[in-house]
Amino acid sequence: MLPASVSSYIDRNRQAFVDDLAKFLEIPSVSTLPDYDQDIHRAAQWVLDQLGSFGIEGRIYPTERHPVVLASSEHIPGAPVLLVYGHYDVQPPDPLDEWETPPFSPSIRNGYIHARGATDDKGQFLTYVKAAQAILGWGEKLPVNLKFLVEGEEEIGSPNLEKFLRENRAELLADAVAISDGAQFAPGIPAITYGLRGLCYFQLDVQGPRFDLHSGGFGGIVENPTQALANILAALKAPDHTVALPGFYDDVVALEKSEREELASLPVDENRIREYLGVAEFTGEPGYSVVERKGARPTLDINGIWGGFSGQGAKTIIPAKAGAKVSMRLVPDQDPARIARIFREFVEKSSPAGVKIKITELHGADPVLVSRHTPAMRAAEKAIEAGFGKKPVFIREGGSIPVVNLIKKHLGQENILLLGWGCPDDGAHSPNERFSLDDFHRGIRSVASLFYELGLHGA
Amino acid sequence: MLPASVSSYIDRNRQAFVDDLAKFLEIPSVSTLPDYDQDIHRAAQWVLDQLGSFGIEGRIYPTERHPVVLASSEHIPGAPVLLVYGHYDVQPPDPLDEWETPPFSPSIRNGYIHARGATDDKGQFLTYVKAAQAILGWGEKLPVNLKFLVEGEEEIGSPNLEKFLRENRAELLADAVAISDGAQFAPGIPAITYGLRGLCYFQLDVQGPRFDLHSGGFGGIVENPTQALANILAALKAPDHTVALPGFYDDVVALEKSEREELASLPVDENRIREYLGVAEFTGEPGYSVVERKGARPTLDINGIWGGFSGQGAKTIIPAKAGAKVSMRLVPDQDPARIARIFREFVEKSSPAGVKIKITELHGADPVLVSRHTPAMRAAEKAIEAGFGKKPVFIREGGSIPVVNLIKKHLGQENILLLGWGCPDDGAHSPNERFSLDDFHRGIRSVASLFYELGLHGA
Repeated sequence: MLPASVSSYIDRNRQAFVDDLAKFLEIPSVSTLPDYDQDIHRAAQWVLDQLGSFGIEGRIYPTERHPVVLASSEHIPGAPVLLVYGHYDVQPPDPLDEWETPPFSPSIRNGYIHARGATDDKGQFLTYVKAAQAILGWGEKLPVNLKFLVEGEEEIGSPNLEKFLRENRAELLADAVAISDGAQFAPGIPAITYGLRGLCYFQLDVQGPRFDLHSGGFGGIVENPTQALANILAALKAPDHTVALPGFYDDVVALEKSEREELASLPVDENRIREYLGVAEFTGEPGYSVVERKGARPTLDINGIWGGFSGQGAKTIIPAKAGAKVSMRLVPDQDPARIARIFREFVEKSSPAGVKIKITELHGADPVLVSRHTPAMRAAEKAIEAGFGKKPVFIREGGSIPVVNLIKKHLGQENILLLGWGCPDDGAHSPNERFSLDDFHRGIRSVASLFYELGLHGA
Repeated sequence: MLPASVSSYIDRNRQAFVDDLAKFLEIPSVSTLPDYDQDIHRAAQWVLDQLGSFGIEGRIYPTERHPVVLASSEHIPGAPVLLVYGHYDVQPPDPLDEWETPPFSPSIRNGYIHARGATDDKGQFLTYVKAAQAILGWGEKLPVNLKFLVEGEEEIGSPNLEKFLRENRAELLADAVAISDGAQFAPGIPAITYGLRGLCYFQLDVQGPRFDLHSGGFGGIVENPTQALANILAALKAPDHTVALPGFYDDVVALEKSEREELASLPVDENRIREYLGVAEFTGEPGYSVVERKGARPTLDINGIWGGFSGQGAKTIIPAKAGAKVSMRLVPDQDPARIARIFREFVEKSSPAGVKIKITELHGADPVLVSRHTPAMRAAEKAIEAGFGKKPVFIREGGSIPVVNLIKKHLGQENILLLGWGCPDDGAHSPNERFSLDDFHRGIRSVASLFYELGLHGA
């Protein structure tokens, strides 16, 4: 389906495309830490320049925090409109000492490029840019109208994207949306994701005494904020690993029998995953398989915890303060606002006398399921088969992509393609994040094919 | 009882003694952090030089970690021998940003000298040095034989002191021991401490997956080490604030009725203490008063906790590791070795599948009660009355001074005077630690009086 000229352009420019990806990865565009604000802007400009270099023009839109890049190809009447979403921001790279090579000095080893953002999302997003370049750069006409929406706040929950979509709705309307910010089901098993978990993320700050106290002099009379925190966190989960918040599971849509059968048929090498993760055993909610638990069931995880003395040796204090980050992954039809309320009430009720607890909601996202029965979905299936040499499986993913909900809500668009080119063991959010150069190449071929499939059969 | 010449020397040198204390406090002799090893040596040398300046000679004894200073006055036949113990090491100063002035730049404000170690133990220990100087510096003869034992490992549990006492037993034998490393009962209410709590200090390290994981991709299948830690820590305490380790209270000697009455008669301004600490309510073991709970009942406190992301904003990870420091304060007749075993067994039993837990014992100390009916105790009572203008009360202290147990065990000495010149709100182990210059002065007068009382009436 791919014109020979385009196919050959992609193959001949394989190394040049990797070089461009490395340049993108060198920019430490960490969205959550204010120190990197300049790099955020550099990354946005880089994306705009790339697109502009082969005629997809647009501009950088400031928001209250990090800017959005919006660019469109020259309009072709009658061709379907595909909105491509990606994000140029990345997670913080810490713990730094666990990286084999520095997180913002891309290093190629064993066929992988290693850097923060390699898979999430710079590498995956860039496949769309390079596919468009392969067509336009060769002098061909695009078979679709392309709109690129690239934000810098995905890793902090896209706080300003909603307003942006509302205000630029007309420019963003499309027949389908494509997002590659997930993963294949497993290496060599490409996938189309039709479900995403939602998110509800909190910070807890516990204040005890005004300052750290000598635990000899005051142990026994003062509530210890680290103990209060541990008690609250322990109470969030039941011994069987279910979430103990009252009513947490009330609105969870049960998995249908056919869906459980389909998920059960996916080839999962649990030993291989355990070995990769370095854990002796999987744990989790009883009655559900590993695949179900990581994608189709809600969870709660502590993302960080702190308080008091963590240096070498012994310091006998009652800490003045303690804190934790806690997040919940939600599934349809859990409502993040309702879950947030339940969480708040539970924590407030669990808070002991003698300490003060501050509960801050950091971000939230709705869970989502998209329709599997659209022309765009069939186009994606064919395109992936063309790019990867095998048919994709259909999966539900554990992560959240807030923009999916926003697109549904503000653009009224449910025709959303979630196509993962990376792999679950690429280490998104972990040290030594990587992206397979083969997957990068196959992703570019798939995207180019998708453009032609959509152009031929519509969205 | 103090010769007029000595009394006047102390008064005339009030400022010079404070200047010397400030010099001592400028040395950041933090024992638990290897970065300060040079300062540890400087502090030991400073102590030796001070004593040598008025004829109390000795030397610095290396140990496996931090050295011990041992010095003796010229022997006077027939006079009782008093062994003075102190420590020149200090706690780490963090959290640094909560100090009003830098921890190792002593600052005098409102009649207090502020610095790490001001009260614990440099200021209190120095009263013995200055009392001896007031006698010898004036040309008087000491009424007692003095031996100074000054270590640099008190804040890390005195790991090498036991060996030192064993190997230098003959040189250390004395008729009584004096230690000022505690506090008055309250400002203006001097005290003699006859009971100390013991200590059992642990570090827990929990290892989950090999590296931080994306909580979307892996939430629901992997045991979260911060959650495992929170569960273990929560299980250590019962909802009524008692320690939940099975058998923890088995060997606790019940408080006698007369002792409870005596402790109840102590003037305690709970509102004032709560205000100082900034806590709305005291919490603790039911059925015991605040005074009993902080000195005569055993406790368990988390001293620090860490794991995962603690930066600004949201990072959606399952942390690879988590850890905590946990210590227990023990009372007679709890045996730290038995308590350590109980703790270990409980934590091992509470450890969930899917994580690995390492339990490290950092230090321990026996609880202790000393006899209140000795000539030395009467001498101390009189000396404190002379120095502070009022009789001391008898109290049990919440902290541990490991050397007390070691002296009992290796020198066979139970005639131990625990005399606190500081105050409970001096902020030992806290930011803005301080020591009242009046208390410093009264302490010096009390110590000089103690020397004469012991010389006159024996120990």
